[in-house]
Amino acid sequence: MAGNTFGVLFKITTFGESHGPAIGVVIDGCPSGLILDRDFINAELQRRKPGQSSITTSRVEDEDIEILSGVFENKTTGAPLCIIVRNKDQRSQDYEHLKNVFRPSHADYTYQAKYGIRDYRGGGRSSARETVARVIAGAVAKIILQHKSITINAYVSQVGNVMLNTPPEEIDLTLIESNSVRCPESMVAQEMIKLIEKTAEKGDSVGGVVSCMIKNLPVGLGEPVFDKFHAELAKAMLSINACKGFEIGSGFASASSFGSKNNDAFYSENNSIYTSTNNSGGVQGGITNGEAINFSCAFKPVSTIRIEQSTVSDSGENIKLKASGRHDPCVVPRAVPIVEAMAAIAVVDFILRQKAVQL
Amino acid sequence: MAGNTFGVLFKITTFGESHGPAIGVVIDGCPSGLILDRDFINAELQRRKPGQSSITTSRVEDEDIEILSGVFENKTTGAPLCIIVRNKDQRSQDYEHLKNVFRPSHADYTYQAKYGIRDYRGGGRSSARETVARVIAGAVAKIILQHKSITINAYVSQVGNVMLNTPPEEIDLTLIESNSVRCPESMVAQEMIKLIEKTAEKGDSVGGVVSCMIKNLPVGLGEPVFDKFHAELAKAMLSINACKGFEIGSGFASASSFGSKNNDAFYSENNSIYTSTNNSGGVQGGITNGEAINFSCAFKPVSTIRIEQSTVSDSGENIKLKASGRHDPCVVPRAVPIVEAMAAIAVVDFILRQKAVQL
Amino acid sequence: MAGNTFGVLFKITTFGESHGPAIGVVIDGCPSGLILDRDFINAELQRRKPGQSSITTSRVEDEDIEILSGVFENKTTGAPLCIIVRNKDQRSQDYEHLKNVFRPSHADYTYQAKYGIRDYRGGGRSSARETVARVIAGAVAKIILQHKSITINAYVSQVGNVMLNTPPEEIDLTLIESNSVRCPESMVAQEMIKLIEKTAEKGDSVGGVVSCMIKNLPVGLGEPVFDKFHAELAKAMLSINACKGFEIGSGFASASSFGSKNNDAFYSENNSIYTSTNNSGGVQGGITNGEAINFSCAFKPVSTIRIEQSTVSDSGENIKLKASGRHDPCVVPRAVPIVEAMAAIAVVDFILRQKAVQL
Amino acid sequence: MAGNTFGVLFKITTFGESHGPAIGVVIDGCPSGLILDRDFINAELQRRKPGQSSITTSRVEDEDIEILSGVFENKTTGAPLCIIVRNKDQRSQDYEHLKNVFRPSHADYTYQAKYGIRDYRGGGRSSARETVARVIAGAVAKIILQHKSITINAYVSQVGNVMLNTPPEEIDLTLIESNSVRCPESMVAQEMIKLIEKTAEKGDSVGGVVSCMIKNLPVGLGEPVFDKFHAELAKAMLSINACKGFEIGSGFASASSFGSKNNDAFYSENNSIYTSTNNSGGVQGGITNGEAINFSCAFKPVSTIRIEQSTVSDSGENIKLKASGRHDPCVVPRAVPIVEAMAAIAVVDFILRQKAVQL
Repeated sequence: MAGNTFGVLFKITTFGESHGPAIGVVIDGCPSGLILDRDFINAELQRRKPGQSSITTSRVEDEDIEILSGVFENKTTGAPLCIIVRNKDQRSQDYEHLKNVFRPSHADYTYQAKYGIRDYRGGGRSSARETVARVIAGAVAKIILQHKSITINAYVSQVGNVMLNTPPEEIDLTLIESNSVRCPESMVAQEMIKLIEKTAEKGDSVGGVVSCMIKNLPVGLGEPVFDKFHAELAKAMLSINACKGFEIGSGFASASSFGSKNNDAFYSENNSIYTSTNNSGGVQGGITNGEAINFSCAFKPVSTIRIEQSTVSDSGENIKLKASGRHDPCVVPRAVPIVEAMAAIAVVDFILRQKAVQL
Repeated sequence: MAGNTFGVLFKITTFGESHGPAIGVVIDGCPSGLILDRDFINAELQRRKPGQSSITTSRVEDEDIEILSGVFENKTTGAPLCIIVRNKDQRSQDYEHLKNVFRPSHADYTYQAKYGIRDYRGGGRSSARETVARVIAGAVAKIILQHKSITINAYVSQVGNVMLNTPPEEIDLTLIESNSVRCPESMVAQEMIKLIEKTAEKGDSVGGVVSCMIKNLPVGLGEPVFDKFHAELAKAMLSINACKGFEIGSGFASASSFGSKNNDAFYSENNSIYTSTNNSGGVQGGITNGEAINFSCAFKPVSTIRIEQSTVSDSGENIKLKASGRHDPCVVPRAVPIVEAMAAIAVVDFILRQKAVQL
Repeated sequence: MAGNTFGVLFKITTFGESHGPAIGVVIDGCPSGLILDRDFINAELQRRKPGQSSITTSRVEDEDIEILSGVFENKTTGAPLCIIVRNKDQRSQDYEHLKNVFRPSHADYTYQAKYGIRDYRGGGRSSARETVARVIAGAVAKIILQHKSITINAYVSQVGNVMLNTPPEEIDLTLIESNSVRCPESMVAQEMIKLIEKTAEKGDSVGGVVSCMIKNLPVGLGEPVFDKFHAELAKAMLSINACKGFEIGSGFASASSFGSKNNDAFYSENNSIYTSTNNSGGVQGGITNGEAINFSCAFKPVSTIRIEQSTVSDSGENIKLKASGRHDPCVVPRAVPIVEAMAAIAVVDFILRQKAVQL
Repeated sequence: MAGNTFGVLFKITTFGESHGPAIGVVIDGCPSGLILDRDFINAELQRRKPGQSSITTSRVEDEDIEILSGVFENKTTGAPLCIIVRNKDQRSQDYEHLKNVFRPSHADYTYQAKYGIRDYRGGGRSSARETVARVIAGAVAKIILQHKSITINAYVSQVGNVMLNTPPEEIDLTLIESNSVRCPESMVAQEMIKLIEKTAEKGDSVGGVVSCMIKNLPVGLGEPVFDKFHAELAKAMLSINACKGFEIGSGFASASSFGSKNNDAFYSENNSIYTSTNNSGGVQGGITNGEAINFSCAFKPVSTIRIEQSTVSDSGENIKLKASGRHDPCVVPRAVPIVEAMAAIAVVDFILRQKAVQL
């Protein structure tokens, strides 16, 4: 209950700090008999990895997973999986000067206040490096979803003021990985990259939006009232570092719409029921209706910038701070696999929960 | 785990259908020794009640709570509270014609698919009447927060295209209840009311945004990683009927901002630490930093409209449907106390969880 | 997490005090489409009811359930069931003299210390009347088990020094309800009744043992490590008022046995696997093996006796106390349906959990 | 929810198989600022270790913990602790002949039936080696309890027919570790050792009882109704491999007792309240009353014996099996630290839960 666990039946618990010995995850509730493809998990980690291109941090995190439990002869046994990645490129000395400083818009101050102690090296537990564990668990979840032909594809739909205006259903998802910013439209992607590079030159950072599409979900996933499909998704996304907003379907735009326009008319075809529009984003009353799920997550600009800022030391002095460490000028390209991972984990959990609804 | 429970230590479980015998809530984990003010709880229910003004449904829900357990000589005993409200004005016959119809953008189809059965009267469990139970639990939570001088005030910041553009910190919260739309600025409120009335005349409905401000929170609430303060808030809000989006602090606007502008500089004054801006919305690394919390929730237009729509019967026929029952043309004025209730429940839960962090 | 909930997927939360308005239970996770037989539930309550015979308390609890939610046209809908029973025969004045007294071996002192307040009327929340809610939930669970042909039968196997020595597998379960003490062997039952009557005359109380047999369980129920089948059963049983011990299969007798004698040899017959003895009590490694489950629960003598005892007032004075109220001289006959109820709830929960183990 | 987690606020999740890469535990909810003494944890593991004396298995498990997370400069940070021990002395080939055999009274058959797959090497997840993780977590819990002066001491009170008849309150707990069987009375210990040696010579195994004493607990721990102090203890103990029974206070003996004898009279002295006897075992109404907790756990004889037994292969053939591997002839001496560990974990969890009861 101390907040490091997500999920009810497909339950993941992450552990590890940025500069501790390892980052890892325990997955309890993974169905048995699943072939666990190490290469796929490592490939997913590669997508999250820093240093992939000119627009991400040059810090190198060369991951290689170690499976400590739950697998026998390459198959899951139903026992908890523990998978870890060792922390290698630590350079703890980079952080010595931050020992007594609360970096603006970071978690330094709040962790210190909450726990009376903090691991100041690279943010410790609050570091985005924790998402390595999520991507591992997400990869396991995706292996399960492959059995059900369910696909999850996230992409960058906004960087600063550069927006992708194509409606979700018209996106060519196969183009997402064709550029370093992970925007499926080449022209928009180029503008985004330019903005990120320009921002990086100034030592500044810029925000963005990651959108995501889930296809081939069965009708009926999601629990009513508090554990609505999109409520759990929202929690999953807002739990990602730097995420400040979530919307599903017509989202914030629905606030300025009318029922006559926003409602999704049903129609029947070949004994199946569909909606002619999808402002609901695939969820009605908290339960999936068989249409594609589409949602978006707003990410703030990375807090670490190489521009002088006012802040406070842990003894309460007003001081100036200018970061010098390696950092991403824009988090959204690397957030893409993390958004997918959290979505995959949430979906698998709902699939397992749904099994208990009818006798 | 079937989704009707919210909270870890201050744990509420709601039950009841729109047209069943009663709506109610069990609160397990309410601290003992609390004076439970019935009048305050009933007053909160009055704020949620339909039929309060020209812009809400004329359906009358005259609530009166019944406390079934957990109170002795007006004080909580530490035993679970069960509080119910009887359903009176049921008119089940109003819904007979919906028995075999899936209303567009309602939960009829998804519930039928999930459970193989549904209570079609007024939406049954998926009805917004379930929020009566949340408002009751929220009132209990608010009584606890009063002991800590923590205040929670929600207000309407958008109806359709009519927006309140005042920054959260400049809002006069005392004016919220001064008009029927619960917008703290009279001029904007009048425009909103006009839009709702015009929409109602057409038999249509319109969406909106509810914003919320929490003040006087201690530093340190919220659990890292998955149960971040704003992640739980997001789940709480998205679990409310018709809510399609959530943002905290600079939210979606942060996507087009830069770190140099969006970061909140710390400063120290009189031995306390503050931020000079509040784009973080009072939360950093998932943990409260002592600044005011501000967040917003997008609500779609109510799905029930008195305009003919295409839909499908439960036997799969394509049909036309035109609603005739009573309904709200805009949900946001009545959503205000519900947003406050869910926020209060989440905050109390975090306060209790925080007690276990240090020995 | 305040202790009033049992179960993971078939999750019950009870509420209510002995002399408050009502006792009730919310069942979240009850599968949909189940015909809920009111008469069966009321009949189970009758089995628990005081005043059934010369050997139980003459206090009358004439129960009649009220279903507040979760049922539509007699069927469960998948929404939470709330079922209550009003408290009628309250006689609160009977307890006025206990307002300031801590009754020996009751929960008066510990509740006062824990919560700083207590409902002293009839024990309040700590009263065995709370088990009304368990019997209701157990009846719902039994309805589910009937669909699977799983049977649960508890019986009295010991009262004071009078013991039933027949091995579990030789018991004629159809005879349990043939006498007021619920011991399936008439001769032993008569001795038990005599002992209880003699004890009652002295104003004293006597302990006993309830044994229980579960048949037709599938192989594979129970979760490894902490949530072993018999570990959850043990918790369920020890949570019943006055229960002080639990054993499964050869139980405490296995402590003085040898592996060569205690091990259950497997054999195969008609493509099924059986054990030739059942010292395991139907559970191996925490998981059911298809054999009958048999377990026993020790109940201490009822704490309320009409004999003068030394105790302490809530102001710390050493005083004498002699109870005058109505009470059972021996709790085990009425504990039989409660043991069955808790077992049924635990079994249904494991059945639902098992659905999520394989894809 | 797949059963590998114990505790609500001090929450442990164990992972690892007997012959996999590692055994480990994640502890979420460990209070921050605690000095984590590696030597103490390793010393506790030594107490559990096989090969300690003539009466335990000669299999060598030379443990050395590796702390992967949650500690900074030797102190806990409030982040989850992950602590592992590598599996070294694996000899997987010892188990090749068991690949297709279901060992009697082991978990081979039930795991295969539940999961459709099993790691047959040394029992895999069902191996008692899993308790390494519990002892680690228990050592962390004990460090917390040391701050509160709470002590937990388990000891062997029965091996086969050799019983220790001294009442719990008269036991000299300092003598427990003075002999290899961990019975605090030397004469009885010698008899126990003789019985175990004789049993070992025959290739057989023998059962026993571990009793445990918890001292200096505050009044008020434990949650009413389902999460009673002793109900959670019972679950904790029954979750230990080979444990078949649990009793607290007068336990099964209370079944043949009378209220006038079994009730614990209160008395007041120096402004504190005590009981003159302790048949309640320190718990009343599920909540601690400040007296010492005493409880006992029955352990069956180890299932692995070097005597030929009838059993079944996984293809359903009736076969004979005779074990040749290393094993303990009696599990109780090594169960002592495991019982203490589970008790410590349960107590710390209740201490943290108690913090949330009053505002």
